[in-house]
Amino acid sequence: MITLASDFGTPYPAAMRGVVHRRTDDRTQVSDIAHDLQRQDPRAAAFWLRFVLPEYPPAVHCVVIDPGVGTDRAALVGPDNGVLLPPARALAAAQDSEFDVFEIEVSDPASATFHGRDVFAPTAADVHDAGVDSLETLDALTPTDPETDLRFPEADRSAGRAIGEVLVVDDFGNAITNVPGDFLDGRTGERVTVSTGGVIHTAPVTETFASVDPGERLVTVGSHSYVECDVNRGRGDEAFGATVGEEIVLSFE
Amino acid sequence: MITLASDFGTPYPAAMRGVVHRRTDDRTQVSDIAHDLQRQDPRAAAFWLRFVLPEYPPAVHCVVIDPGVGTDRAALVGPDNGVLLPPARALAAAQDSEFDVFEIEVSDPASATFHGRDVFAPTAADVHDAGVDSLETLDALTPTDPETDLRFPEADRSAGRAIGEVLVVDDFGNAITNVPGDFLDGRTGERVTVSTGGVIHTAPVTETFASVDPGERLVTVGSHSYVECDVNRGRGDEAFGATVGEEIVLSFE
Amino acid sequence: MITLASDFGTPYPAAMRGVVHRRTDDRTQVSDIAHDLQRQDPRAAAFWLRFVLPEYPPAVHCVVIDPGVGTDRAALVGPDNGVLLPPARALAAAQDSEFDVFEIEVSDPASATFHGRDVFAPTAADVHDAGVDSLETLDALTPTDPETDLRFPEADRSAGRAIGEVLVVDDFGNAITNVPGDFLDGRTGERVTVSTGGVIHTAPVTETFASVDPGERLVTVGSHSYVECDVNRGRGDEAFGATVGEEIVLSFE
Repeated sequence: MITLASDFGTPYPAAMRGVVHRRTDDRTQVSDIAHDLQRQDPRAAAFWLRFVLPEYPPAVHCVVIDPGVGTDRAALVGPDNGVLLPPARALAAAQDSEFDVFEIEVSDPASATFHGRDVFAPTAADVHDAGVDSLETLDALTPTDPETDLRFPEADRSAGRAIGEVLVVDDFGNAITNVPGDFLDGRTGERVTVSTGGVIHTAPVTETFASVDPGERLVTVGSHSYVECDVNRGRGDEAFGATVGEEIVLSFE
Repeated sequence: MITLASDFGTPYPAAMRGVVHRRTDDRTQVSDIAHDLQRQDPRAAAFWLRFVLPEYPPAVHCVVIDPGVGTDRAALVGPDNGVLLPPARALAAAQDSEFDVFEIEVSDPASATFHGRDVFAPTAADVHDAGVDSLETLDALTPTDPETDLRFPEADRSAGRAIGEVLVVDDFGNAITNVPGDFLDGRTGERVTVSTGGVIHTAPVTETFASVDPGERLVTVGSHSYVECDVNRGRGDEAFGATVGEEIVLSFE
Repeated sequence: MITLASDFGTPYPAAMRGVVHRRTDDRTQVSDIAHDLQRQDPRAAAFWLRFVLPEYPPAVHCVVIDPGVGTDRAALVGPDNGVLLPPARALAAAQDSEFDVFEIEVSDPASATFHGRDVFAPTAADVHDAGVDSLETLDALTPTDPETDLRFPEADRSAGRAIGEVLVVDDFGNAITNVPGDFLDGRTGERVTVSTGGVIHTAPVTETFASVDPGERLVTVGSHSYVECDVNRGRGDEAFGATVGEEIVLSFE
């Protein structure tokens, strides 16, 4: 299986799908992760890929990333801007293993503006066909160290108080922070004070959206296991005045 | 085959695709119906699913829904909020058969906020692998009756006059009513009076959009066999002042 | 393999996916090109399909278009409004071959408004199953000549000066012209004067977006091998005042 993820919008991803289908046998599954990831934002893409890729069976993930036939290892193919490293660490953690990094040597006179089609998709197809266990046999790949890493900041926690930041706002408007979900352990039903953008709100800690009336604020642990600031049937980012990258302080009195 | 439909936008559906691929063999086809169905609107989703699902071969539809290996029966997997029942009735009608309802017992400590990934997608994969004819063998499923039904209102019809409502507005702006298409039988070329939102319009009954000039109103029977109020190359909802759930009266003088 | 492309938005394409899955065996791959192609604009669709389809292995392209089992020929299925001809010429050129045109006879009482579901998708499935080399065996197809052709205008070029037009604006805001990329051969680093909409800009000719600062204009050759007017991390259409169909003059002094 080959998955594709990009910020290409439409219809460019179809060119990548064409390339991987053309270079693999006609039973190879090609699955789109998403092509509307936040544009030119490796951090947001890394956040989502770290969340989503471990759900997949071993695959070649083209982020353009790569999995193997007859193996339980996954491969990631994409640019050296940090976007691959958080999902690589998440995949490795899920399998209790480690990962290696290779550099792609580009020999063809590829286009300067569409590496997704001309470099990453073909490499993903080649890695898929060679098999992840046989990466070393591919001439175009040489072991390397990544030039750019990307790590999400860790929240600063003490008892009853966490200073973090908003990592991403999702499609629903939920403001997802870097505060680990266990910060809310045993707090369900209490009110938490949320300070961000110079404004202070309080909201109940709940386990579900429906615990509050539609339009009301809540603070809960999302499916990615981080604390998020939400509104039932509304947009948490607007209600809390939360924007990506901004400091957010959660405290219980 | 497993199909997925949701109102999750992006990129959450990828987590569900990952789960079903991980739990089924690598030749299982996974097809997305749509993930931008109207948010938190089981009625609109039920309308579209009732329209679309009968086009598919027998499958496990995750709406999150259930397909069958070696069977001609389909399965639907999703929440008990009514969204599954109109498409279930449509699938049963298309096959001139009936359907059974099962309750999913959730034993794992699943997330409270992403049942698509943690409950419905895994159940769809399990039903797919067991086969729809062997549903009874799955411990997690027990026969039940649905708690919530969802039925579209029927239009009130007499000769030359129908009082209905706007069921949905589609992506093109076509205002689709609950008035059955045969209300327009033999009326092509006549003008029909459309009253909605306190405003009265008249428009020709046509068989195609191109029967009127671009920008002009028309009333026709859509591919779902209901009467719809449209504009050639424009938005019928705006031109007729039609909003979902509003009463609409069609009459011939 | 069957590919689907349309301007149907959502969720109508799912009905077409259902139809082709229902009519083909359960291992047939169905791949979406895009369903948000510019609405009712065969010219824009033709541009993108000409760009994307040659990347695919031989397939039935439903644009609704044709794949081949055990053949290296492709088929295109869709309406006779010109949209199929530029991609057909591109596919033929890529294979150094020619193409034939067939007319679909519609015998069923299909809906008047959803030919994608009722005419083109079933024909694509039938062509796929018969095999592209056996098109002649399908009763519903008869050789014909297309009624409507669609050719992109050619730019008027002399040394150092090209008069063309904006063919499409892509999802990033890049304004793609009909001026062939070789117009910029040997010009990298020079400034080119761009005149469009009565306004004159100058911008450097570059090979990559990153050659200029974020927010700055550039002129480059895109992955489709045409000259495009762009902004690094911004929208070229807005910065150059370029709209589709408008004359654009590029000149070196």
